[in-house]
Amino acid sequence: MNIGLDMMGGDFAPTEAVQGVHSFVAANPDVSLYLFFDGARPIEGLPEAENIHLVPCEGVIGMDEHPARALKEKQKATISVGYHYLAIGKIDAFASAGNTGAMLVGAAYVIKPMEGVTRPAVCTIVPRPDGTTGLLADAGLNADCKPENINQFALLASAYAEHVWNIPNPRVGLLNIGEEEGKGNILAQSTFPVLKENDKINFVGNIEGRDILTTSKADVMVCDGYTGNIVLKLAESIYDIFKFDRKIEDDYLERFNFEQYGGSPVLGVNKPVIIGHGVSKAKAFEGMLTVSKRMVESDFCEKVKLRF
Amino acid sequence: MNIGLDMMGGDFAPTEAVQGVHSFVAANPDVSLYLFFDGARPIEGLPEAENIHLVPCEGVIGMDEHPARALKEKQKATISVGYHYLAIGKIDAFASAGNTGAMLVGAAYVIKPMEGVTRPAVCTIVPRPDGTTGLLADAGLNADCKPENINQFALLASAYAEHVWNIPNPRVGLLNIGEEEGKGNILAQSTFPVLKENDKINFVGNIEGRDILTTSKADVMVCDGYTGNIVLKLAESIYDIFKFDRKIEDDYLERFNFEQYGGSPVLGVNKPVIIGHGVSKAKAFEGMLTVSKRMVESDFCEKVKLRF
Repeated sequence: MNIGLDMMGGDFAPTEAVQGVHSFVAANPDVSLYLFFDGARPIEGLPEAENIHLVPCEGVIGMDEHPARALKEKQKATISVGYHYLAIGKIDAFASAGNTGAMLVGAAYVIKPMEGVTRPAVCTIVPRPDGTTGLLADAGLNADCKPENINQFALLASAYAEHVWNIPNPRVGLLNIGEEEGKGNILAQSTFPVLKENDKINFVGNIEGRDILTTSKADVMVCDGYTGNIVLKLAESIYDIFKFDRKIEDDYLERFNFEQYGGSPVLGVNKPVIIGHGVSKAKAFEGMLTVSKRMVESDFCEKVKLRF
Repeated sequence: MNIGLDMMGGDFAPTEAVQGVHSFVAANPDVSLYLFFDGARPIEGLPEAENIHLVPCEGVIGMDEHPARALKEKQKATISVGYHYLAIGKIDAFASAGNTGAMLVGAAYVIKPMEGVTRPAVCTIVPRPDGTTGLLADAGLNADCKPENINQFALLASAYAEHVWNIPNPRVGLLNIGEEEGKGNILAQSTFPVLKENDKINFVGNIEGRDILTTSKADVMVCDGYTGNIVLKLAESIYDIFKFDRKIEDDYLERFNFEQYGGSPVLGVNKPVIIGHGVSKAKAFEGMLTVSKRMVESDFCEKVKLRF
């Protein structure tokens, strides 16, 4: 298995990326890593091993660059080369904490959506106090959605929960403002019957804002990307406030730390792509590699294709 | 000043309502209260004073009854009589923790929207760790919105923040998934210029999910009611989880307890209407009366009318 990592992505690259690679390699000596770095700025301190491949690139796509333009103009930058390696099969998964827009453009135009998928999605992981974990999609890629898009998010996230997390027959809930069918805005009202009729998912009905964290009504929660992104960022802020501002130590609160999950997979594209947070540190880089490994191991993309 | 309270509304009425009345009266001996109760079930333990007026009614609108039908058929129930008193001026504000739908129908059809207001809104109070408090509207009354509706929520909530909370020139933020103009779903993209052109509000631009709790970028946050309701219920669940499940004691966390805020005002109707939570206890009933008093004292409704 060959996994690619952009060593230059994120505010704390490459130092923290190097630490993340060390931790990952120690736990996964069988995985080959392809590490994309800026040839003009050699990286020190990487583990020396047969399965660690350094790929010198030319430049980096900055965090504030225009995604599509940068990908087109900087074809030798780390993200561009990483996608090229993924496209030609030199690596089986590609992860970066760099320019999110560029990662998404690459996923959509280099790796491309799977046949039948109209709108790929990103998902976010939601910790529950009972120890379980939920998956929310779309977390921000598709601000405006049609019912059929949300139906596809349900299929994609269900496949992820089942194959990558080993949750059999994951329950799917529609994020809404009331429990009964018929509640909600026009989009939610129109989406409910589409999900209900989809026999490839285990639809359990509407869930409300209070159910996102507290209950285990649904393993997979679906909504449009505008709503999902607001929920994601609100949930992330809970960690920052209670951990750093209020100095609260709590096992459950600790599970809000995005770092341990590493990054968000892009669901619905032909190969595993993992997008990390711009403020990723060592643990997050290690997590991105771990998520990549699980997606490859579980043959996630091929299994999803069978559902479409 | 005369304030009306439905003694039969909510899961813990009338016992907790009685306790709430005691606390309020002790602190506000100058306010006259009109207490609507079911004549068939006399209430014991209320304070005896000249300014406490008991209004026997006939029956109660149940929590699960169809709102419009119940209000029409049970014209002598506590909520119905309360609205009648408010409509004819016997009371200056009316509060209930009973059937939310019936309260909203009464607000819309008995008290009616102010001239120029197309869609009244409900708002929710958001505590910030720095001690400040934000106001989010709409919190669920209008699942589908047009830019002009959200523009009106901004006007209404700004007036509330200014006149009831004494925040001069409150900053208004549009809840969105990116900071820059042009970000967001079609609704947010179309709402931004409308808010920007409204010289009766202090629009500060987009805010994100992470800004709802953590920062003080905006005093007033506006969005459609679908999104607002999900945010509201997610925020409420934070209190339940960390307080009761995780047993965390924290001053800021305590401010997530809706009980201390009492209830949500219905913004944009002709007279002060306050809707309490179905699980209101004594503190929440006292809070509902306090909010009612502040709305009357500040002459909120008349001041809002000047803005439309």
